[in-house]
Amino acid sequence: MISDPGVTEIVRGIRPLDDAVARAAEAALDGKTKPRGSLGRLERLAVTIANVRGATRPEPLRPVVVVAAGDHGVTAEGVSAYPQEVTGQMLANFGTGGAAVAVLCRHAGAELVVVDAGVAAPPSVPAVLDLSLGAGTANAAEGPAMARSAAVAGLVRGAALARRLTDEGAGIVALGEMGIGNTTVAAALTCALLGCDPRLACGPGTGLDDDGVARKAAVVRRVLDVNRPSPDDPIGALAAVGGFELAVLAGVALGAASGRAVVLVDGFISSVSALVAVLLAPPLRGYLVAAHRSPEPGHGLALDALGLAPLLDLELRLGEGSGAALALPLLAAARAILVEMATFADAGVTDTGR
Amino acid sequence: MISDPGVTEIVRGIRPLDDAVARAAEAALDGKTKPRGSLGRLERLAVTIANVRGATRPEPLRPVVVVAAGDHGVTAEGVSAYPQEVTGQMLANFGTGGAAVAVLCRHAGAELVVVDAGVAAPPSVPAVLDLSLGAGTANAAEGPAMARSAAVAGLVRGAALARRLTDEGAGIVALGEMGIGNTTVAAALTCALLGCDPRLACGPGTGLDDDGVARKAAVVRRVLDVNRPSPDDPIGALAAVGGFELAVLAGVALGAASGRAVVLVDGFISSVSALVAVLLAPPLRGYLVAAHRSPEPGHGLALDALGLAPLLDLELRLGEGSGAALALPLLAAARAILVEMATFADAGVTDTGR
Repeated sequence: MISDPGVTEIVRGIRPLDDAVARAAEAALDGKTKPRGSLGRLERLAVTIANVRGATRPEPLRPVVVVAAGDHGVTAEGVSAYPQEVTGQMLANFGTGGAAVAVLCRHAGAELVVVDAGVAAPPSVPAVLDLSLGAGTANAAEGPAMARSAAVAGLVRGAALARRLTDEGAGIVALGEMGIGNTTVAAALTCALLGCDPRLACGPGTGLDDDGVARKAAVVRRVLDVNRPSPDDPIGALAAVGGFELAVLAGVALGAASGRAVVLVDGFISSVSALVAVLLAPPLRGYLVAAHRSPEPGHGLALDALGLAPLLDLELRLGEGSGAALALPLLAAARAILVEMATFADAGVTDTGR
Repeated sequence: MISDPGVTEIVRGIRPLDDAVARAAEAALDGKTKPRGSLGRLERLAVTIANVRGATRPEPLRPVVVVAAGDHGVTAEGVSAYPQEVTGQMLANFGTGGAAVAVLCRHAGAELVVVDAGVAAPPSVPAVLDLSLGAGTANAAEGPAMARSAAVAGLVRGAALARRLTDEGAGIVALGEMGIGNTTVAAALTCALLGCDPRLACGPGTGLDDDGVARKAAVVRRVLDVNRPSPDDPIGALAAVGGFELAVLAGVALGAASGRAVVLVDGFISSVSALVAVLLAPPLRGYLVAAHRSPEPGHGLALDALGLAPLLDLELRLGEGSGAALALPLLAAARAILVEMATFADAGVTDTGR
């Protein structure tokens, strides 16, 4: 089905999860000193972690947040409240530690990997990893955002990065992004892959008013009309609509799962990247955890398509992986519950079996 | 209005928050490298922390989770799926570190203070602090759960404990509880204070089926009929309905606020304890943060009465302060955003003022 050789190989590397470990983890949780299921979604998260790691007593999961940045030709259509130069400026701000995601990663004990996936004016900051696919995409409202070969290159580079991170011991790889205009791109890709109406997928992003949202939906419609992306060809849709950071992040998701890491999805853009990856490799689905629900309407569509219920709902609309970084302590807590809690027998507590 | 001298003094110790610090914190957040308000509820949490601490750049907040345990005479009415002995057994399990809240506190870097507020069979574990008001309350379905003087003693002891903790440097005091039967007590107290119907306030607790919930609502109705608690006398209602751990936790909330700590409310029982405290000292309201929303229906009523929107919604129904411990990293993150993020000027990022 996928005719792009580099991608075929990555997809083959993702092991479908069987449920034996999950069942064993559930049984272990039922023996802990608490009423059955009383830790709610934390218990289900613990089961996911056990299943991904293939262990009912998984080791602590070393977290890495990958923030990929890219620029978007479609900003020429006036779809963002911010000028394109901000992408490169923020890339520097990630590298020097002042951005929200950098602060949150420090507090969560997570490594932050900042990737230039293709910004127009990359800063000269040594902490930024250069995986650039170009100086921003072409304007998708006038033609394809990138060549199919660029989309494939993004997937391959992202997967290789993630696989290096898991080989070095990462147990959680979180997807973060930065790119002025990329909620427009994510909305267009959502519509392309799910067949929904642009008005349902477009929201204010980081600062549009109502008129701005209407303009954005019209631009998304033009992107779809001009490129006619097919839901049966996710790589083709990704190339047509963009963007570079979405291609790299879809690759990161695939590579992380091939290295048996939990893939922690952040907001709208990273969820759409994960959706591309799941359409390429359906077994990836079992490796995903959704960090938060953003108010951006397209995010709900992407989460529903992925069948994911997010852990947090804090009205975050920043992106950057900020929601993912905030959710990391919940993953650590879920693992700890599974591994460190006493059983009824250990603690001499009466078990009524409820 | 409050005629109990020890309590009057505690209430007088709570400084009403003015909003000058909150406004300054909001302005500081608007200067950080992110679209205005894009960190959603995390920003509002940062403002609350600044306001409580009286500083726009608050120091890291040392967290303490106080878990108070008590037994309830009303368990004689068959309102719980668990036998009363479990309260004392779990108290030991908190002390020895195997219970969920103990595991979660370790991971959140929080001190855990375990309090015997009045259990029938207290374990001999040195880690348990003895503030016992008796060997469990009387059956509130047959008469008052405790004397008014016991309720006052609970408030005073809890406040003194919390004040000691804040004097020693605690910046967050979280309320946790354990007590077989205490969702019945919390439901009765909710009805007494808010005038709602027992059927609306009663849920499955940690393990009742539908018939059990109906029986529980009938018991709550009997508790109210027998004692006729008045919403205008929160201490009288607390004494009539119970329980010892709720009295101590209401005192902890008051004492923590008098020491200018953030008071982090956990689930249903601790929210009702906080409600008692707010009715005694309305300025306490500004010091409260709700950690999570439990599925227990009475919890929603108590949160609405307190005007609190919880941070997490993870279907937790364990109690113990487990939800509070899980929310602690969000408070640390909110403070960090306020104090550690770069401004637009610092980072040389274009500010469009959005």
